[in-house]
Amino acid sequence: MTYLDRDRAARLMAAAGLDALLLFTPEGFAYATGASPGVGTMWRRAGAVAALVPADPGLPIGAVVSDLFEESFRASSDVTDIRVHPLWVETADIRSQDASQPVPDLIAAAWAGAGRVAGFARPETFDAALGFRLAGDLLAARKLGSARVGVELDSLSVSDFAALSVALLGCRLVDGSDVLRRLKMVKSAPEIAHLRTAVTLAEIGIGALAAAIAPGQTRDGLAQVWTSAVQAAAREQDIRNLTGQWEYVSVGAYPWSRGGVVEPGSLIKVDVGCLIGGYTSDTGRTFVCGSPTPLQSRLFDALSQAYEAGLSLIRPGIEMRAVHEAATVAMAKAGFPGFSRGHFGHGLGAGLGSEEWPFFSATSSVVLEPGMVVAFETPWYIDGVGGMIIENQLLITPDGHEVMNSLPSGLVSV
Amino acid sequence: MTYLDRDRAARLMAAAGLDALLLFTPEGFAYATGASPGVGTMWRRAGAVAALVPADPGLPIGAVVSDLFEESFRASSDVTDIRVHPLWVETADIRSQDASQPVPDLIAAAWAGAGRVAGFARPETFDAALGFRLAGDLLAARKLGSARVGVELDSLSVSDFAALSVALLGCRLVDGSDVLRRLKMVKSAPEIAHLRTAVTLAEIGIGALAAAIAPGQTRDGLAQVWTSAVQAAAREQDIRNLTGQWEYVSVGAYPWSRGGVVEPGSLIKVDVGCLIGGYTSDTGRTFVCGSPTPLQSRLFDALSQAYEAGLSLIRPGIEMRAVHEAATVAMAKAGFPGFSRGHFGHGLGAGLGSEEWPFFSATSSVVLEPGMVVAFETPWYIDGVGGMIIENQLLITPDGHEVMNSLPSGLVSV
Repeated sequence: MTYLDRDRAARLMAAAGLDALLLFTPEGFAYATGASPGVGTMWRRAGAVAALVPADPGLPIGAVVSDLFEESFRASSDVTDIRVHPLWVETADIRSQDASQPVPDLIAAAWAGAGRVAGFARPETFDAALGFRLAGDLLAARKLGSARVGVELDSLSVSDFAALSVALLGCRLVDGSDVLRRLKMVKSAPEIAHLRTAVTLAEIGIGALAAAIAPGQTRDGLAQVWTSAVQAAAREQDIRNLTGQWEYVSVGAYPWSRGGVVEPGSLIKVDVGCLIGGYTSDTGRTFVCGSPTPLQSRLFDALSQAYEAGLSLIRPGIEMRAVHEAATVAMAKAGFPGFSRGHFGHGLGAGLGSEEWPFFSATSSVVLEPGMVVAFETPWYIDGVGGMIIENQLLITPDGHEVMNSLPSGLVSV
Repeated sequence: MTYLDRDRAARLMAAAGLDALLLFTPEGFAYATGASPGVGTMWRRAGAVAALVPADPGLPIGAVVSDLFEESFRASSDVTDIRVHPLWVETADIRSQDASQPVPDLIAAAWAGAGRVAGFARPETFDAALGFRLAGDLLAARKLGSARVGVELDSLSVSDFAALSVALLGCRLVDGSDVLRRLKMVKSAPEIAHLRTAVTLAEIGIGALAAAIAPGQTRDGLAQVWTSAVQAAAREQDIRNLTGQWEYVSVGAYPWSRGGVVEPGSLIKVDVGCLIGGYTSDTGRTFVCGSPTPLQSRLFDALSQAYEAGLSLIRPGIEMRAVHEAATVAMAKAGFPGFSRGHFGHGLGAGLGSEEWPFFSATSSVVLEPGMVVAFETPWYIDGVGGMIIENQLLITPDGHEVMNSLPSGLVSV
């Protein structure tokens, strides 16, 4: 199932003068089709997959898919206009063949049954030129062969773009990166559901981690508690699309030491995420073993004030830079006028990396809209004190925002 | 420590007419400097890091590094000519400050002590234009400001290359992708050590997995046994640079089903890798629960014959396509003349994805050289039978090859 809102896509493409988006990244393909791009995209070279999204919502989405993933594609996507090309992986399907014949005949019959022609030869990895030609066929079938087509120039390599340009000579290929990121910025119901499941799982893990904090516990030990608790919860709840986890847990006064052992007074910073169907959550919490020192409290209080100042503005119609300014002003008022965080949060999705455009930065003129899911955060990493963070995942609602987390956000003594 | 052989780099650059390589990918940076590229590269956009490798081995490697990773860079790389630019992450270092002063003064002193100037403001994520200018400074300091500089056009996006071209107007930027991949193809001693540790760990996991095969065991259960055994072995052996693991384990007659429960007669295909310092191993083994059926034996025997036919050729001076041809001819002789595998193996390293150029393909004119580490494999995935694979990791030696695996390669009954 596509995650893409065709009407919103149509509006954004019309504003940008595009007739279609033609997506080659694994993320773009998964977004437009709802299906896994498969192993052919491991090198992030273009041509193993493609997804064509016409501006006209009356024209169907089309996809270029590898033969190895055709069956899983058909099972997971509602895109039916697909063009298939072979990967390097040799296969056969004997399910509908007479198994009593000699083995070579059985295999030959399986290949013939799948339409394999004489002289069939698989490519070294995949045939990008063929993938591009098949994308051209999808365009031509929609009378878009000489259209203005947006491609991902922020991701497409110089080499791949050169080859694509040769394959699609009739088209005007222009940058569709901004249209795509604005489209992805507002989430569909299934995307919001993924992000909700992801943050719920992550918090179960944080709860387990918090319960395990005790003098002598190591950073790696706490990280393992978090990882295991998330996986156990996914099994218990029969969540089958937990596709990944990441953690930046730090223990003690040196947030970048990668080690550390909990002692009385140690800060434990937990910045973690779970991926559901590729969509990552992002949550930050700070614990202290025992009572905080006055210095720890003073610093964390400033971050709390900045967090509240920013959060109070987060609703539709607000420019993201206004939130950055409010948090920065609050830090200054709290005694830290030099505090300069590049952003106080970011979009969430199934992008590359855990942080997705747009950002709560000083320069962002992006206006918040209902349906956006963002992380809002006030982190600070101080060598000699430790890592501190407040970070929640927010759904922008028609009249404000919903905090998708449920654990308390303060500096928690354990 | 750089993984790069400066003399080999000099020869390859001379042959390609390059004065330097200027690398922006996280993989290229890590290869040239031996250091982690850090969180600024999570989006794979250029400008967060850079590594400059002059063709002249007398000129030092230089690097552009983010402030957040400067300390870890200096601790892990022997590259000393670095240019630092800020990330979005706010920090402070109070270690050398008087902790008795008021907290705002303490923080202000920490920032001043780190050389922070009035008006310092962090960028939204990172300032790519600044990163490119600092790369230009590295070039200029080596009198390479108008040199012929190879960049990674296979990876660098169209948008990033356009911005880079503006920042480095004096240079002639040309494609260095082929020089880089040929350079990486032959491994240094530390790289070979990483790959040896990685394959040894993976085999410990395969041993544990094999011991756990029994009717009723699930695919996910076996995969978990593998994962846990690898991690336990890493802990026991105090291996601290296990940076990842991947597994393609299949159980039963449908290799792409992602599920499956072991029954008498089930094939269990194990294709797994461990990453040590980013360098991935790649090993494939096939097990059968009980005795193989005649069909399973017949098919696996063909793969064994192809494996032996290819392996017998693998030594320095041989073109990789000759190995592909030998394996393909052996499959035909064994009764499967239509068998078409795009490649029978590939380079191994710290690249994107588990398979690195070059490939044992029908078209590869790459000549094997001592110091290459490659995976050689004869896999086949048959719906209705199951997944079958023989895959070993080979070090090309001066007079042949060394199989870096130690587990038996046949179809093992358990």
